[in-house]
This record gives sequence, C-alpha cells and structure tokens, in this order.
Amino acid sequence: MILILNQTITHPEAEQLIERLTTMGFKAVKEQQGDRIAIAIVSGIDANTKIDLFKYLSGVERVEDFSQQFKLAGKDFRKGRLVIDVRGKKIGGDELTVMAGPCSIENEEQLHRIAKSVSASGATMLRGGAFKPRTSPYDFQGLGEEALKYMRDAARENDLISITEVMDEHQLEVAAPMADVLQIGARNMQNYSFLKELGKVENPIMLKRGFAATYKEFLMAAEYILNAGNPNVMLCERGIRTYESYTRNLLDICAVPVLHELSHLPVIIDPSHGTGIRSLVSPMAYAAVAAGAEGIMVEVHYDPDNAYSDAQQTISTESFANLMRQMKAIHSVVKQNAVENDG
Amino acid sequence: MILILNQTITHPEAEQLIERLTTMGFKAVKEQQGDRIAIAIVSGIDANTKIDLFKYLSGVERVEDFSQQFKLAGKDFRKGRLVIDVRGKKIGGDELTVMAGPCSIENEEQLHRIAKSVSASGATMLRGGAFKPRTSPYDFQGLGEEALKYMRDAARENDLISITEVMDEHQLEVAAPMADVLQIGARNMQNYSFLKELGKVENPIMLKRGFAATYKEFLMAAEYILNAGNPNVMLCERGIRTYESYTRNLLDICAVPVLHELSHLPVIIDPSHGTGIRSLVSPMAYAAVAAGAEGIMVEVHYDPDNAYSDAQQTISTESFANLMRQMKAIHSVVKQNAVENDG
Amino acid sequence: MILILNQTITHPEAEQLIERLTTMGFKAVKEQQGDRIAIAIVSGIDANTKIDLFKYLSGVERVEDFSQQFKLAGKDFRKGRLVIDVRGKKIGGDELTVMAGPCSIENEEQLHRIAKSVSASGATMLRGGAFKPRTSPYDFQGLGEEALKYMRDAARENDLISITEVMDEHQLEVAAPMADVLQIGARNMQNYSFLKELGKVENPIMLKRGFAATYKEFLMAAEYILNAGNPNVMLCERGIRTYESYTRNLLDICAVPVLHELSHLPVIIDPSHGTGIRSLVSPMAYAAVAAGAEGIMVEVHYDPDNAYSDAQQTISTESFANLMRQMKAIHSVVKQNAVENDG
Amino acid sequence: MILILNQTITHPEAEQLIERLTTMGFKAVKEQQGDRIAIAIVSGIDANTKIDLFKYLSGVERVEDFSQQFKLAGKDFRKGRLVIDVRGKKIGGDELTVMAGPCSIENEEQLHRIAKSVSASGATMLRGGAFKPRTSPYDFQGLGEEALKYMRDAARENDLISITEVMDEHQLEVAAPMADVLQIGARNMQNYSFLKELGKVENPIMLKRGFAATYKEFLMAAEYILNAGNPNVMLCERGIRTYESYTRNLLDICAVPVLHELSHLPVIIDPSHGTGIRSLVSPMAYAAVAAGAEGIMVEVHYDPDNAYSDAQQTISTESFANLMRQMKAIHSVVKQNAVENDG
Repeated sequence: MILILNQTITHPEAEQLIERLTTMGFKAVKEQQGDRIAIAIVSGIDANTKIDLFKYLSGVERVEDFSQQFKLAGKDFRKGRLVIDVRGKKIGGDELTVMAGPCSIENEEQLHRIAKSVSASGATMLRGGAFKPRTSPYDFQGLGEEALKYMRDAARENDLISITEVMDEHQLEVAAPMADVLQIGARNMQNYSFLKELGKVENPIMLKRGFAATYKEFLMAAEYILNAGNPNVMLCERGIRTYESYTRNLLDICAVPVLHELSHLPVIIDPSHGTGIRSLVSPMAYAAVAAGAEGIMVEVHYDPDNAYSDAQQTISTESFANLMRQMKAIHSVVKQNAVENDG
Repeated sequence: MILILNQTITHPEAEQLIERLTTMGFKAVKEQQGDRIAIAIVSGIDANTKIDLFKYLSGVERVEDFSQQFKLAGKDFRKGRLVIDVRGKKIGGDELTVMAGPCSIENEEQLHRIAKSVSASGATMLRGGAFKPRTSPYDFQGLGEEALKYMRDAARENDLISITEVMDEHQLEVAAPMADVLQIGARNMQNYSFLKELGKVENPIMLKRGFAATYKEFLMAAEYILNAGNPNVMLCERGIRTYESYTRNLLDICAVPVLHELSHLPVIIDPSHGTGIRSLVSPMAYAAVAAGAEGIMVEVHYDPDNAYSDAQQTISTESFANLMRQMKAIHSVVKQNAVENDG
Repeated sequence: MILILNQTITHPEAEQLIERLTTMGFKAVKEQQGDRIAIAIVSGIDANTKIDLFKYLSGVERVEDFSQQFKLAGKDFRKGRLVIDVRGKKIGGDELTVMAGPCSIENEEQLHRIAKSVSASGATMLRGGAFKPRTSPYDFQGLGEEALKYMRDAARENDLISITEVMDEHQLEVAAPMADVLQIGARNMQNYSFLKELGKVENPIMLKRGFAATYKEFLMAAEYILNAGNPNVMLCERGIRTYESYTRNLLDICAVPVLHELSHLPVIIDPSHGTGIRSLVSPMAYAAVAAGAEGIMVEVHYDPDNAYSDAQQTISTESFANLMRQMKAIHSVVKQNAVENDG
Repeated sequence: MILILNQTITHPEAEQLIERLTTMGFKAVKEQQGDRIAIAIVSGIDANTKIDLFKYLSGVERVEDFSQQFKLAGKDFRKGRLVIDVRGKKIGGDELTVMAGPCSIENEEQLHRIAKSVSASGATMLRGGAFKPRTSPYDFQGLGEEALKYMRDAARENDLISITEVMDEHQLEVAAPMADVLQIGARNMQNYSFLKELGKVENPIMLKRGFAATYKEFLMAAEYILNAGNPNVMLCERGIRTYESYTRNLLDICAVPVLHELSHLPVIIDPSHGTGIRSLVSPMAYAAVAAGAEGIMVEVHYDPDNAYSDAQQTISTESFANLMRQMKAIHSVVKQNAVENDG
C-alpha cells in the first residue's frame, strides 16, 4: 500500500504519520515523489485490514497498490533511479562507477600499488578481498581483519571508495567501520538471516546475483535488505550457470536492461567472474557499459599471473588503463543518446 | 595424507599420535579401516612439509595420498558407507529411512496428527519446518521456537527421529537441543561460515544440495562440516534448476549412484521439492529407491490442499501409506540384488 | 475439435464421415473410445468455421474441444495408452520393452554375437547404428546400408524387433524396408520437414527428446509425425543439458510420469546416453522402470572397452544379463502395485 | 595437416598439387596465408599415413598440425578474419552489417514498405521469413515460394542483400536462386545431412547457434558446411536456454569475443530472438556492437503489434532508425579503439 500525501505535508509531519502507523502495527517508510511525499506500508497489512482506514488518515490524498512483489526494490514507490552517495561521491548517477583491484588482498604493498595505479587510470572504487569464500575448506581463506586496514588506508590515500566482501555477522561487525561499501557474494544471496542483518548497517550494500537466481529472486533478496532498513543497495550481475563450460560463467548482459525495467537500484557488472578468462574481460565490460550498466567491477593486478586467487581472470594494470579509456568513450555515447531521446 | 598404522596400534595410542600431530600444527582425525586404524591429516601440510616426517613416526606402517579433494567426504579415508546412529536408530544402513511430515508446522494438533499417521504407515523420521526460508520477506516465516517443542514431543510420542531446518547460528542454538537431526537448506549450502558452526554441534546434519551446485561442490560443502568436527552428515538431493518450467525443479535421480561412487555419506532424495507436483512425488520416490537411495524425504499432510506452504507438492496421509508399501517392496528387491551380486 | 459419434455408428460409416469432412477442407482421423468412435478434426478450422456445422452432422452425438495443444499426442482423443504392435510383439503394453545392442554396427559377426546374447538374456529389441550422427565431420559415420542387412538378419534370427536411426529422407528410404522401428535422434527432434516425412512410412517411430527440449516441445514434435499420418510414435528420454559436467547428460527420470500425464504415447528411457558412464547405466535403468517407463534402451557390447563409439557408456553382455533380471523384478513390483491400486 | 608451400609456388601449381593429393585419397583446400599459399588436408589421413609423404612433396616447405578440431572454421588455416562479398557488399569487414525486416513475409506491400524504411535508416540487409519453422504443426507456416519473389524484388529495389531461412533440400533448391544469403535455424544446427547439402550451394550461409549448443559444437556444425565445399559461413548467436523465463532466451553476448578467439568466421547477434521482448532489443544490440560483433539481425515492422509472428519482439521502423544511429556511434568508438591498439 502506498499513501500519497497532500502537497502541503512536510517531512516532520510525514514522520509523525509513520510513527502513528507503527503504533498501529504497520511498517512504513517514506520517499519524496516529485513535489510530494509518499509513504509505503511494507508490512502489517492482512486480510482484516480495512483500506478505508488509510484513505481517511489526515494528510493522505490517495492510496495506491503495489504492482510488484518487490515493494521497495521496485518502481512503484521510488520513481527515479537510486543514486547512492558515499563520502561525497555518487554511485548510480550520470558518472560511470568503476570498481577495480585485486581478487585477494595479499599484503599492504600489493594493495597500495594497485590502488595507486587504478586510481590514476580513472577508477572510482577499490575492491579487494579480506575474507574469501572458497569452495574448499583447504584453500586460502584471506588475510582477514589485517587486510581491512590496508584497504581503508589504500582507499583514502588514493581518493577511492572501498568495497570488500563479508560473509557473516562477525565479519560484518569488523568490516563495517573499515570499508565504505560491503559486498555480499553470490553464494549468500539467499542467506536470509544475514540479509536482515545487513539492513541494520550504515554502509551501502552491493548484492551479487546467485549463480542460478532468477531476476525476481535477485530483487526479492535486495528487498530483504531494504525492508530491514538499509535503503542503499546496488545489484551486481556476475554470471550464471549454464551447460557451457568454456567460460567460468555466462555473463548475463541482459540483466542490465531487465533490472532497469523492474527496479530503481543501480546495476553493476562483473566481467571478471562473469567470464573467468582474462581476454574476455574487456569486450564484456564494453558490452555492459553499452547496455547501460551504472558500474563495472573488475579484478586488476600488476602481476596477474601470480595473483593468489583468480589469476586467470585478472587483468594487468596496463590493460585496465586501456579498458577505462574505452569504457569512458562508450559511456559518453550512451549518455549522449539518452539526452537526445529525452530532449 | 593418510597414515595407515601398524595392526598392533590401539585407539588410545592412535589418539596420542593425533595429539602429537596437533602439537606439530596438523589437523588429524582417525578412522577404523578393517583391522587397523588410519589417521587422516586434513590440514597443516604445505610445500615445506617433508613426507618422510610421517613415514618414520612410530606406529605408522605406510603413508597414502588423498585421491579426492573431499578428504573426509570421499572414500579414501572411510572405506565402508557411513551409518548414522540416532537414539538407537540407523540412518544409512540396510533399512530405508523415510522422513515424512508437513512443510510448515502449523500448530500442535496438526503436527501430532500427521506424526501419528506417518508413523503408523512406517515412516522412521518426522520432518516439519519451524523456521521457513522464504523468497519474499513478506511471506509466512514459520512459528519459530514454539514449533520446536511440538516437534520434539510429536517425535518422541510416535517413536520417530525428528528433523528440522535451521538457517543461522541463533536458530542452531535453540534447535540443537530440541531436534534430532538438523537440516541445512539448498540456499545455505555454500554459506561457509555457517557450515563451520555446524561442525561444532552433536546433531547429525542433513545438507541439501544447492539448486545449481555440482556434485563436487556439494561434497566440498559437506567437507566443511566434516572438517569442522561433525562426522555425521547426510546428503539430500532436492532438484536442480534447468530450462524446463513444467516441474518446480528437475529431480536428479542420478545423484544417487554418482554420490555413492564419490562418497561414503548417505543419500536422501526429496521428491516433494524435486518435482513440486503432488502426482509426481510417488513415481519419483520409487525411482529413488530403485536407484539405491538410503532415504526419502516427503511432505505429507492430512489436508494437503490447505497446507500453509508447499500445498501443491504435499501428498495426503492416505497416499503416503501406499507410497510406503510400494517403496518397501522395491527396496527389498534392491537389497536382494545387492546380496546376490555380493554372494 | 472432437466429434463423438452415436453408439450405432460403424467404422465404415465413420470413414464416410471423414471423407465428407475432407471434402469440406478439414483433416480428420478416427479413434475407438470405449464403445463408440470419435473423430478428431486436427486442422482446417479457422475463425470462420461455425461449430454448429459439426454438431448437426448426421451421426454426431456431441462435440468436444481439445484441451491440449498436442491434439493427437495428448489424451483428449485417445483415452487409453498406445500399444504398438510390431510383427506380433507389443511395445507399450504390460510387458517391459528392452532394446539392447551396440552403439555402432561394426561388422556382421559383432552384431550377430551381441544379438544372440541380449536375446538370451531377455531383450525384446535389437538396437544398432548404421548411420551415425557425429559432432565432427571427421569422425566415423557408420557402415551405412550394408549394416542394415546385418541388422535385419540378426534381428530375425534371434526373434528380436530391430531399431536403427535415420537422419534424412535418403536414409529413411533405404532403412524403412529393412528395420522394424526407426529412431530419430535428439538433434533432429525439431527438423520439422523430416518429421513430416516420417508421417508417411509404415514403421513405428521412436523420437528422441532434444537435449534442451521442453516436454511440450517434445510432444509437439511427436504431433508433427502423428499429424502427418503415422499413428505409432514412442517417446525416448535420453538426458538433457545442465551445468553439471560429471555426467554426459542429466537423465530426466521425471519425464516418465510427466509424459504419462500429458500423453498416451509409450515412454522409453535411454540410460546409456543419459549418463555417459557405464557404472551409472544399471541404477538409472532400475529408476526408470520403477518410475513406470514402458521401455529401456541400452548400449551393450561383448567387449565394451573396444567399441567403435560410446565405449565409456556401453555395458558388457554379462552386466546386461544381471540388469535384465533386476529390471524384471522391479517391473513386476510396479505392475503388482498398479493392479492393487486399480482393484 | 597444413602444408605451407614455398614462396615461389603459384595458385595454378597449388591446384595441381591439390589434384595430386585428391588422387591419393585426400581432401585438400588451399588458402593464401600472407605471401605464400597453404594447403589444408582436411580428410583422408589415418593411422597408416606417413607424414614424411607430405614433407617431401615438391613445393612443400613445411608441414603443420591443426591445433583445433574445427580445421576450416578455426584459425590455423585462415589467419585473418573472413570477409564475405555479396554482390559487391562486404559482410565481416570494417562496416557493421545490419539485417532488418519482418519475422514473416506477410504480403508484397508489407515487405516493400519495411524494406524501404530500413534501407533509408541504414540497414544493409533485408531479412524475412518465407518458410517458418513452428513448434506446432497447426501454426502459420509461411507464404512459401511466393514470398521469395517479394523478397528478391524488395531487396534489389532498395539496394539491400536478402537473407531468408531454409529448412530442407526442397526449400534450398527454390530459395538458392532467389535469396542472396541463406539462413539455417537453431533447430537445424545439427541436422548434419542438411549441412552437407549447404556445402554445395553458391550462397553464403548464416548458421544460427542451437539453443543448447556449446561454442565448439557450433563451430563443428559450421565445419560441416565448410568441409562440404562452401567457404562462406557466418555464425549467428540468438540466445540459449537457461532456467530464467523472464526473457525468451538468454542472449549470450560473450559468444562474440569467444568465437573471435576460436574462429575467423563473422559473428552476427540476433537480439530479437535473443530476448523476445521489444524493449530489450536496442540495449542488447548496443552491447553486441560494443563487444565487437560484425553484424546484427533485428525484426522490424511498421506495425509491430500486428505482425503475424514474433510481435512481442519486433521493433517499429521508428525505433529501428534510432537503433541504427546509436549502433553506428558505438561502432565507430570500437573501430577507433582497434586502430589505436594496433597503431
């Protein structure tokens, strides 16, 4: 249920209304819609609830139904596209967000060297794994907390936003104060208990699509986080599973326009995991930008062949410089076309 | 690395050896192999470790390599098949294990009524959801802790082993003392942090295959639990995702002989989730038993059409009675053939 | 549209009615339904056709609509299950049909030796490839016409029904008089021009499911053959493609009960192609029989390791003897249960 | 086996050598490689063939092995990329090939109107179905031969190259003289008998990828045509099957860089079938061009909602004009980058 308020209602008044709804047993959140405020009632409504109740609340102009299951991730409530502000920088706006860095943080020097290089080439965010999800319990599981400090420092020194993966509540606790954005891996996309915890932190969340998740399941997983109170979620497509074994995954570029149709959340494409093959990273990054992706996440190392993990899909800092140049050129064509079609 | 001990070494001596190995930085577990004890060193070995070190340890007859990545789930270490003992009953032995019960525990009376009926028909275990993983945060999430008491009582009164799903550490804590076996859902199969926690409880674990997990990933997930200290894991195939949308999932019966070739862990088949369609449950259960599955898990309700969840795939208590009869008849043919081929 | 005729109408009268309908531009076929004859109008009806036209035709009692797209493969028209008679033997009846033989016919002696052996073990049909579809144009493409003679002779001498694959019209022409049943491979399942040709021959057709075909597409492909005039079609599931590469294909045992629900055509399971691995053939054959399959097709050779093609999935004549015994035991349990549930 | 000839050998001399090889039982084709001629021996070599035989043939400088199974579709033999010349126009060169037109040819006027419009917008080829492959035998199967004349005329009048699908030998016979390029549908990709027939015609062939074909199977299917004598084959990716049902297929943009790595054949992307949804066609076409595709095939109609077939995925002539403009802008960025990286 969405309550569209009278034009004269102010935010403090809207908040009072939300408090009142909360007392009545509903969960409600507000959102500016053009020149007026809207309040979404996301839970508490059951078969016994009388709709008239809402219609005659003071300040409510009219009442609308949700047309999609994903109430907060969908477009009923938020009409424009979400732009996330991180320390003054935007994710999801007119600028292309480029996240670059090593798969695993290997040591302090490695991370600083890569951070400096990708920043110089134009990246806006620094990625790096401190806690690594590994198929085998016997594989390298990451440097852990220590790596988070390197991450924070390398990001700040190079004017980058940092992003790192967390896999459980304990890691969440230690990483939240150290990293800007927190990444949830594909294997945890439907770890609902954890998604609810993510609703409680201040950090924006980048949620990766499970490797056999449908678009709707992906958005319902984002809904868990949004519904738990964190409004800043971005979606990351990183390849799905098919019968084809030539590539590590099949990178679904079509996720970009589909998720844009269904949701207001920014869409990031990860061509490194999406292909698993170094030579395919750049062409797929170009494709993603041309299809309208708000961002790209890519694994970069000065010595890719000797990276601790994901060596086969990591590109060199030199390749990254060329990739950045070409992505920017394509991005400017895309933005130009959007302007012309609007104008 | 597997150390095969001299025939004269006793279990207390083997445990002393394990302690010594632990002091040296290795993780080791022991297992009876025929007439002698074997010790598997599952971690701590790196490039600098000298193999001779192990060969000349007192009591060690010879040293073998693991041929499979899944050291404890595989067949290098445990030669026979795992039989799990739960309060005097066996899972994985010559008897067919049949887990039956409602998708969700709806109330005390419902669960008792179903427990009584499936027990009378020959089921050995009672299933029922207290905590429900739901794609949408807006759907019914289960009765929670209260349901666990109903579960414990209904199982005990009807001489059944109980099994219920847990999704996080908090649920694990409350469910472990109440339920016999704990089930990990398909969506959490690669929630590695949680798998490690499961290694610390006494309860046997039934791990469900992720809906796009390969056999090897499935076994590596089981390995996380085994490696963390819990030796009692059973594997449950519940259908995977394909392009076919007629059924809810594609139930992979071939998982039975494949997992038998690769691992010593018992294999359970869930034709309810595996098909999503009531009329297909029985034929697929028959197929599973014929293929050699150690157990079947099936959703049963006295009023399936009005079940709170999974109504479409829940069978009636009457159908379950016929299903039990026919499964037993097929199981006895399968066992007879095994005896003849051995004899 | 299905015309249910008055109880007094005889087959010659029904045929006169069909002739009249043909003159009017319709395509119609007849079928005994219990004690009366039904006529299905499978094409020629368009938006302008008045339904009353049929209702008032002499001899027509009532008119029914098709509820399924597959008019002739579905169950609207034929109420019972199809039993195909080949030289006095039945496919699809109460007996289990077992097709066994080499992947490729290698020479006369090889085929006779295998035919003799599988016949002695209880097989009812002899399979063998004369024309081989190969992914590469550089691989062995089969012995061709010469092999068809070996096939005919080996089958007759051992009282077996023969089945062989054809891939085009030319092969169809030479194989039709030589083989009893003609097999259409998975890659040709949607070769519509060829399916129409198959409607014109006398031989029963075994149509294999395309490796990414849905159940409905499979039945629509069968419909092409039925609609073109050949009433004797059986369906063969031989594995579909998924992300799992451990097995050659994923054998979809659930196809058995699904196709039984949707269609009256006999369902054959091919565990050899369905798994691609020798050790998995028998357990999957047992599963298929338990699920209710009318038949099994399996690759057998006295020296499987040295078979020209499909060596890895071919079982020995000795394994086949044991497989037959066990399948018969399971089949008798299945039939017994069917009787009890009917009785 | 590839014979690299001495620099002095002329084409007539090379042809004499091929004749000699033919007499010896080999199949051989020649190709200019830089400043010398190479001869590929594609069949006839078996275990008994002595390699020295080729090394000492007069005119042969050295002998190389094929590193790929697809001898003619791969890059061992042809080092550069294939450019196909059709009546003076190039497919696969530096210009972007754009094929546009209706799914089905509905009548003469419809086709002429669409041809005129897409030509004005910059399309280079006219597509249109005369023979339609349909899942159901009861659906509209196309206008047939009559439509081929409309096609020929509409293409010529608007300076377009024509392309249409053929499904069997009879259609091939009537379409070959009427259409410039012949299209083979996804369902016939492994119809090997037909592929061999396509080797004998003069027309270039556009082969569509089967909806569950691997890259290697796709290239082996192309190999069948090349090996049968037709050197002009282009590859068309049109979406594959996955568990996601939101779109008709999953358009695999990654096929572009993968097929470029494995083969020299031009790659065309079909975003109409690849998505099945009108609003997704343009973003996916942009992605394809950015990834380096040599061409795009798209369904266009002046009244898309009332198209006879594929209405949901057909775009309007107005949308096509904007699509063309934007594709050209992206294509020029891609070409510019290629020049910079080469220079």
